Amino acid sequence: MIELWHCADARSFRALWALEELGLEYELKMLQFPPRVFKKDYLAENPLGTIPLLVDGDTRMTESAAIAHYLAMRHGGGKFTPAPQDATYGAYLNWLHHGEATLTFPQTIYLRYTFLEQGERRSPQVAEDYKKWFLARLRLLEQTLGDGRMYLLGDEFSMADISVGYAILLAHSLHIEDELPPLTVAWYARLTQRPAFVAAQAKQREAAAAQGVEIAKF
Amino acid sequence: MIELWHCADARSFRALWALEELGLEYELKMLQFPPRVFKKDYLAENPLGTIPLLVDGDTRMTESAAIAHYLAMRHGGGKFTPAPQDATYGAYLNWLHHGEATLTFPQTIYLRYTFLEQGERRSPQVAEDYKKWFLARLRLLEQTLGDGRMYLLGDEFSMADISVGYAILLAHSLHIEDELPPLTVAWYARLTQRPAFVAAQAKQREAAAAQGVEIAKF
Repeated sequence: MIELWHCADARSFRALWALEELGLEYELKMLQFPPRVFKKDYLAENPLGTIPLLVDGDTRMTESAAIAHYLAMRHGGGKFTPAPQDATYGAYLNWLHHGEATLTFPQTIYLRYTFLEQGERRSPQVAEDYKKWFLARLRLLEQTLGDGRMYLLGDEFSMADISVGYAILLAHSLHIEDELPPLTVAWYARLTQRPAFVAAQAKQREAAAAQGVEIAKF
Repeated sequence: MIELWHCADARSFRALWALEELGLEYELKMLQFPPRVFKKDYLAENPLGTIPLLVDGDTRMTESAAIAHYLAMRHGGGKFTPAPQDATYGAYLNWLHHGEATLTFPQTIYLRYTFLEQGERRSPQVAEDYKKWFLARLRLLEQTLGDGRMYLLGDEFSMADISVGYAILLAHSLHIEDELPPLTVAWYARLTQRPAFVAAQAKQREAAAAQGVEIAKF
């Protein structure tokens, strides 16, 4: 059975959402954010102390965008991923990486120096630098959505929508959603209406309640 | 013909190295770092102003780790990438993403607040926070190399070595190589002896000289 270590609405939500889209069986192990602080023995599972951790037999993965692609290729017969010869293959891979490397990491710097650090260790300048950096990088997404497409690759949903969609979920958690551009907002609203997204949200709430884990709010 | 927009030893080196490993034909277009400052009309090519930009027919890509995988799958018959049913497939995808999202991004924050920003906009605290963050995250790499393997997946070189190897190249550019752990240093030394790595280094020097582009040093 696939095991996913997860904090509510953290990066690991990509893996949870992908599991639901593919209709796979899994065990959800909830952690309070940040796990490094609240569950020190988690380091025995994942020496980095980060989430997600996906355990699938001998395979152990910690990168959320990689997990979404892995699950589709290994357990979903390639569902929600274009084939290498498809015209959208390069765009697919690019968005898959872009969602984390370019659109999520800068927001974690904003999160750290606005909410997580205390007192003099907060840095409003750096937080603002990376909030701006994130919002500026949304240009590529907004431009791509400009032709009225439903999803990042066109009419078909893909794991790229999960990767980038999570970055927009995070922007909501950080209360910067009012600064998102309009086509991005409309595309994200479509994603949140997908049954698998709704199910993933419900699953993390139920599992947190059942396991007595508090859900962090900023 | 594949076109690669590149700054010497920047993230786009992953794409250049991958092109050399696969023996593909390409045109190398050198830019001075950072291109947003030195070549404003590059924004017409890539609205984000970032490098790399890979142009392959109608495919345009900006994420360097994604490009390495794309080139192998689209033009290399899957060379240097395990198949989805292989035992190393999850580890491969994880390292491919990890090299950029977890090991390169934090170093760019160190770079920005140590070298690129000036005067009061420099932030020694934040720079130090993310240098430490990067070095702590090397634990997974050092642990993996602990069984004496040649490359990240075992005896076989893969695009994952390019993704993570570039993060170690960047650590050298930022003069923090003395703080790297020993197995990481030895593995990186093996990578730099690969003929394709040596060729990629030579190609960027020659192209920069031929195109009159200065190579940034920090």
